[in-house]
Amino acid sequence: MTKATDKDRVWIFDTTLRDGEQSPGATMTHDEKLEIAGLLDEMGVDIIEAGFPIASEGDFKAVSEIAKNSVNSVICGLARANYADIDRCWEAVQHAGRPRIHTFIGTSPLHRAIPNLTQDEMADKIHETVTHARNLCDNVQWSPMDATRTEWDYLARVVEIAIKAGATTINIPDTVGYTAPVESADLIRRLIEDVPGADEVIFATHCHNDLGMATANSLAAVAGGARQIECTINGLGERAGNTALEEVVMAMKVRGDIMPYFTEIDTSKIMNISRRVATVSGFPVQFNKAIVGKNAFAHESGIHQDGMLKNPENFEIMRPEDVGLSGSSLPLGKHSGRAALRDKLGQLGVDVGDNQLKDIFVRFKELADRKKEVYDDDIIALVRAGEDPENDRLQIVSMKVLCGTGGPAESTVEMEVDGKEVIATEQGDGPVDATFRAIRAIHPNKARLQLYQVHAVTEGTDAQATVSVRLEEDGMIATGQSANTDTVVASAKAYVNALNRLLIRRDKAGPGADVREISYKDVT
Amino acid sequence: MTKATDKDRVWIFDTTLRDGEQSPGATMTHDEKLEIAGLLDEMGVDIIEAGFPIASEGDFKAVSEIAKNSVNSVICGLARANYADIDRCWEAVQHAGRPRIHTFIGTSPLHRAIPNLTQDEMADKIHETVTHARNLCDNVQWSPMDATRTEWDYLARVVEIAIKAGATTINIPDTVGYTAPVESADLIRRLIEDVPGADEVIFATHCHNDLGMATANSLAAVAGGARQIECTINGLGERAGNTALEEVVMAMKVRGDIMPYFTEIDTSKIMNISRRVATVSGFPVQFNKAIVGKNAFAHESGIHQDGMLKNPENFEIMRPEDVGLSGSSLPLGKHSGRAALRDKLGQLGVDVGDNQLKDIFVRFKELADRKKEVYDDDIIALVRAGEDPENDRLQIVSMKVLCGTGGPAESTVEMEVDGKEVIATEQGDGPVDATFRAIRAIHPNKARLQLYQVHAVTEGTDAQATVSVRLEEDGMIATGQSANTDTVVASAKAYVNALNRLLIRRDKAGPGADVREISYKDVT
Repeated sequence: MTKATDKDRVWIFDTTLRDGEQSPGATMTHDEKLEIAGLLDEMGVDIIEAGFPIASEGDFKAVSEIAKNSVNSVICGLARANYADIDRCWEAVQHAGRPRIHTFIGTSPLHRAIPNLTQDEMADKIHETVTHARNLCDNVQWSPMDATRTEWDYLARVVEIAIKAGATTINIPDTVGYTAPVESADLIRRLIEDVPGADEVIFATHCHNDLGMATANSLAAVAGGARQIECTINGLGERAGNTALEEVVMAMKVRGDIMPYFTEIDTSKIMNISRRVATVSGFPVQFNKAIVGKNAFAHESGIHQDGMLKNPENFEIMRPEDVGLSGSSLPLGKHSGRAALRDKLGQLGVDVGDNQLKDIFVRFKELADRKKEVYDDDIIALVRAGEDPENDRLQIVSMKVLCGTGGPAESTVEMEVDGKEVIATEQGDGPVDATFRAIRAIHPNKARLQLYQVHAVTEGTDAQATVSVRLEEDGMIATGQSANTDTVVASAKAYVNALNRLLIRRDKAGPGADVREISYKDVT
Repeated sequence: MTKATDKDRVWIFDTTLRDGEQSPGATMTHDEKLEIAGLLDEMGVDIIEAGFPIASEGDFKAVSEIAKNSVNSVICGLARANYADIDRCWEAVQHAGRPRIHTFIGTSPLHRAIPNLTQDEMADKIHETVTHARNLCDNVQWSPMDATRTEWDYLARVVEIAIKAGATTINIPDTVGYTAPVESADLIRRLIEDVPGADEVIFATHCHNDLGMATANSLAAVAGGARQIECTINGLGERAGNTALEEVVMAMKVRGDIMPYFTEIDTSKIMNISRRVATVSGFPVQFNKAIVGKNAFAHESGIHQDGMLKNPENFEIMRPEDVGLSGSSLPLGKHSGRAALRDKLGQLGVDVGDNQLKDIFVRFKELADRKKEVYDDDIIALVRAGEDPENDRLQIVSMKVLCGTGGPAESTVEMEVDGKEVIATEQGDGPVDATFRAIRAIHPNKARLQLYQVHAVTEGTDAQATVSVRLEEDGMIATGQSANTDTVVASAKAYVNALNRLLIRRDKAGPGADVREISYKDVT
């Protein structure tokens, strides 16, 4: 570990589980949140913002559990500027080896108008709430929401108040993704120069990508003196998302000559966590996304022969291995053994127990019998398909679908519902619609289908398709996934997986719980 | 029209059809290129880089045709630093009302090593080739490829040579996506200050997004004195892509206070062209993409109630209407008439003739009978599905598919091949694989499936799915698309569409033509 006091060290604050998870539709389950937090901790993220504890019972539990399981990362929770929020946040994060409370209030004229506070009244509130947080926890972060649209004098004044009240990190959010690099650097520089006590705290930058400049704005803030960047995996987040962790980290690594800062991130873990976040959030990464897009390292496309063959540096500034992409395609096939599979899973960053390996191996063999080439993505899909618990209340036993151009599609589905076999046949617009109708006939429900997505995870129609289904019922959201060479079967299983998750949630939460009824959740 | 001489006017140079189309897998057909060029011209793009004429017969024809059809835009073609390239480029662009030749050479040490030229030899070559281009055309752009990694003294020297030889635009490419904003601004500023004659030409910036900073780097270059930004729709392009047109244009519009520059782009056309480019290239836009992502304006997600309801400016810096997104969902349904449909098509930026409207209306009614809500995306899918010519050699007459969990899927396909009916039944891994096998049984071919993609264009499983299929045969690439409520039917039709395109190309081109055999195609 490098000295934390080193003046060129930039702290990486990941908010995939808080600001990222707030993207409309990106809701994650409890287990998914725990898994992602574990991966973030493992890759060297300094601070994990795990959620907004008072927002719901589910958020509270997730933050508590993540705190309990944390290894190296600081675990942070979000709280508005009131005692109830801050107390609830502390209740959740206190279990961490290194807890942090992050409290905030909107300081721009537009946001001051909402609670209808004068500048002085808000200043008092900031003093009180930061003091309260600091009395609970010696690691307190404070954010003036919409800082980039707050009057300079008032911003400097409230930052000073927060520092005096005990905040150890001051975060300057560009809540609406409005700023540009020169402005972003200047704002931090002026605050550090002008605000008494500024040299005692760490300044953080929190950018949104509405104008496509979040990465450059974050790095400019670092040049201006910030030493914490708030970001998410894949740039997940509200609207156009947050700063992408992988972009700021790799930019500092590649351009250390003009950006002499460093982080403690293990960049070789980037691809794996990027894929996991894309899957659990249901937000695919576009091919031409920087660093983690499928094409980001696609240099070898037959039209670069000359330059690339002579010297890869002609067109490459990073090596695929730097971000955890194995350069070569997978040599696994039907003759590969269990050791080779375990080895490959390790390379892909997937850690499985012996039992799970056995199960994956069986399905790997089945797949290898049917497919000539088994790609990395096939393997990942195999692992994912096995993640669902075996004691689901709804299970698909068999299905038979007839479709084509001759009339409506017809689907016959046989299911086990709480151990009892039920069968139904329905017609619909296309095979998937007919199948979903049959499932609804067997298990009537009022869940609304929010998203239906098919990813052909590998090339070729004999490849596995991963289907994501997102359902909403009474404010609860559940996502189901399944991978199969038959898209219709994968769709049915994904739908049933999502229904099972809704059932589990409803059982656990009771009516009304876990509903997103809070207004300020997605604020900084 | 604003005065072109205005010192704050930034020229938008779109290279979607050249640098964008070079992305591995993004190949577009002749007709698609013409359509996109028309949309770019219509939205006010100043210069359209239409292709690389010497690269292939297809590129040459596309550039020529785009030049002939151009209305306001300057039409530009790419050429390496030799007479044959430049002559061929001129042959193609000369048909435009306002033609431009863009010639380039790699000037960094790495790129000088490829042709093995000394600094002096390369300088002579630049002088000769730019002079030759200028003798053909009075609008000449010159680019030192990999400029950001070229020694400063040599860069200044060759820029001066190009200006003296008659270049009217000097483009400074960040070929590997390596630079950062401060550096980008400084480089242009120093060139303008130091190079004799620099004030006589327009400086351009051409950035790649490998580190996620293309937009900020381009805008920084403008602050440094550049007045042309090279960009693509959706940031399409090699690796992590080029600067996204929509981001730089909207950033200048939204932040005119700190970036007092303007363009002539009609921003209300952005969404429509973004969707078209995503479709024809087969490169979907991620939900959280700035400006054009599905979530970019998703403020109304039930978790913003408080702030957003009181004042949209709390979280909005742009209005959806500014980029051509209609704020409300579509009220069209089964009772809507033809006038309402035409009106809606107009709002969506789709211009159709009477015959096409009639055809779309029939299919709209069929769809409205089956679906409760008809969304904007359904309408767009309907329009797209009708684009294929009726005289295709291969046509699907009917199909019947049986799939499920009970064994391999089976597909029976009946087709018309050059007017003759043929039928085949095949089994496969899943319904799509079985169907493709049946089609191959009817029309044996050695085309390799490069991409198979399903987009559920609207929510719900009764929505239409758009399927894209990309095939490669002997270096020729063809993409087919189809929309249907039955994914399997859409897949079959998309596959057959792609096969038909391959047949057309093979007929037109003769063996070997249109093959991408050129090495420098994707250079700046």
